[in-house]
Amino acid sequence: MNVQNDSLEASSGLGPRILLDGHGGDRAPSVVFDALELLLATAEGDDLQLGVVGTDAVAEAMQARGLAERIVHVPARDVIEMCDAPAVVVRRKKQSSMHVGARLLRDGAWDAFVSAGNTGALMAISKLILKTLNGIDRPAIASMIPTRSGGKTLFLDVGANVDCTSDHLLQFALMGHAYMQAAEGIEKPRVGLLNIGSEDIKGTDVIKVAAAAMESLPIAFVGNVEGTDLFSGEVDVVVCDGFVGNVALKTMEGTARFLADGLKQALLSGTRARMGAMLAQPALRAFREQFNPGRYNGAPLLGLNGIVVKSHGSADAEGLANALRVAVREVRAGLLSRINVLLSEWNEA
Amino acid sequence: MNVQNDSLEASSGLGPRILLDGHGGDRAPSVVFDALELLLATAEGDDLQLGVVGTDAVAEAMQARGLAERIVHVPARDVIEMCDAPAVVVRRKKQSSMHVGARLLRDGAWDAFVSAGNTGALMAISKLILKTLNGIDRPAIASMIPTRSGGKTLFLDVGANVDCTSDHLLQFALMGHAYMQAAEGIEKPRVGLLNIGSEDIKGTDVIKVAAAAMESLPIAFVGNVEGTDLFSGEVDVVVCDGFVGNVALKTMEGTARFLADGLKQALLSGTRARMGAMLAQPALRAFREQFNPGRYNGAPLLGLNGIVVKSHGSADAEGLANALRVAVREVRAGLLSRINVLLSEWNEA
Repeated sequence: MNVQNDSLEASSGLGPRILLDGHGGDRAPSVVFDALELLLATAEGDDLQLGVVGTDAVAEAMQARGLAERIVHVPARDVIEMCDAPAVVVRRKKQSSMHVGARLLRDGAWDAFVSAGNTGALMAISKLILKTLNGIDRPAIASMIPTRSGGKTLFLDVGANVDCTSDHLLQFALMGHAYMQAAEGIEKPRVGLLNIGSEDIKGTDVIKVAAAAMESLPIAFVGNVEGTDLFSGEVDVVVCDGFVGNVALKTMEGTARFLADGLKQALLSGTRARMGAMLAQPALRAFREQFNPGRYNGAPLLGLNGIVVKSHGSADAEGLANALRVAVREVRAGLLSRINVLLSEWNEA
Repeated sequence: MNVQNDSLEASSGLGPRILLDGHGGDRAPSVVFDALELLLATAEGDDLQLGVVGTDAVAEAMQARGLAERIVHVPARDVIEMCDAPAVVVRRKKQSSMHVGARLLRDGAWDAFVSAGNTGALMAISKLILKTLNGIDRPAIASMIPTRSGGKTLFLDVGANVDCTSDHLLQFALMGHAYMQAAEGIEKPRVGLLNIGSEDIKGTDVIKVAAAAMESLPIAFVGNVEGTDLFSGEVDVVVCDGFVGNVALKTMEGTARFLADGLKQALLSGTRARMGAMLAQPALRAFREQFNPGRYNGAPLLGLNGIVVKSHGSADAEGLANALRVAVREVRAGLLSRINVLLSEWNEA
């Protein structure tokens, strides 16, 4: 697919300037260009200013795809691998695409950075270069999960901070509130604290203190919620520490895969079942599509002084395009200043 | 269904003596008698000595069911409610069915106690009366989960201890190992530590210390596992603290319910889908049955100086019968002395 001239001209618009990481993830850089083409083929790409940061190989791939006139190539010399230890590469690979992206974001040359690379490295580098917002000790990774009512729940932290204090949990709650308000347009997001029972007496001391303090935050705190409530649609933001959040997220993934395998086996278990499956195939496909993780791809790194979005390493073009849309929504909604306002209100109170 | 005379006589056998709680759970006491009838109707009930502890109302229900000759009624005056705070009732309702059951277990009158009541109260009362095994600081609740390969994985702790030290995790690993060996007949159970990545550098300090120490335990420690691995069948025991375990367990439950709802909706979404679902119904029913939580019902409370099994409050007769079978297996396998041997070997080393 070639980009047409009219969208080329539209590219000089003044919409969000989004920089993508040309490295990282299972299918870079081709999936990056596929995702960009998807966006550029529709009106939603019209006012976007798009760039890809990476090595010469990335620039060449961009040329070969005929995208060089529509997308800016930002040169970088190093590549962060999935197996790189974040604490090491943060200081060693200073010319990596992540470092270059974060520096350009800090300097105001771009509005957001999207990467499907090494999560720990992305967080460490972003934190080092962008710093955190005033009042935020630790940034969090937030994941969007589908709910029974057809909505979405923001779940954070899903892996950035294994040990959290009550204050960290409060900060996550404020950021989650601001995100759902700004990027998803929910006026009064209901915020819950993940616990092992709905009663006040449950949980660790950190959680009990956080729950008590959340009552006085300027948000709609609904109290303790449990693992079974994550999909209920009765809460818009669920807060927990990064260890628990990561385990819960991967347990969801494992449960879904396990059940999907079992269903597949059952539907292949005999002639009658196969015939039934054939008839129900369009419905089953729609069901699968509804829960396609790509639909919810794009995990905001919240609390940084800059908009950074993590795409799943295995995301396809549609999934990566969704991560890009998350970044676009954050920019358009002015998420950072909204979090800043909320934090200063809270600090003054 | 009435119990026949031949099984009545067989009841004087010398098999495991299992005492059930006549209170607690959604459908007590009728479901208790249903479950006992299920067992007594088959050969597996032949050598069991069975009792139900509860108030006069329980004794009357037993009479009415015609079970009084086959099952012993053990009187208790108090009932622990689901809403009772464990820390309160442990000292206040000393004549509850749980207290009476635990005391009789301690005194050697029965071999195991099975209850579908308030989990926290069951744990607190059992701990107070039975004490823990030598070398165990805190008992854990273990849950059995199905795996992709058709096997089972023991997951602990799923809620008894919200804060755990590395030593507690080591003790859970030893108990899980002993359980899978004794009750499930797995010669060398593979034991994993739940973490947020397979690398050694991941996780909290408590987990890093536990992982290093587990290497030197006399068990097949396979290292860190993740939430996605819980169903893989590549590990027989997964160890974590009770907060994380409880969240993971409830997240599984929530994910399964969410997906089942979605599937149902999809299969009702039109004539063609409905026809397909009708054809595939036997296969779909078998699929549902395979993952019926009742099949895995019966959570051992491990580390107590006595065999106590928790049944899910919503378990049906088949589910409760499974919890009873768990208790029977533990008794027959001599689980307590096996854990004791393992603990003294470890303490000497």
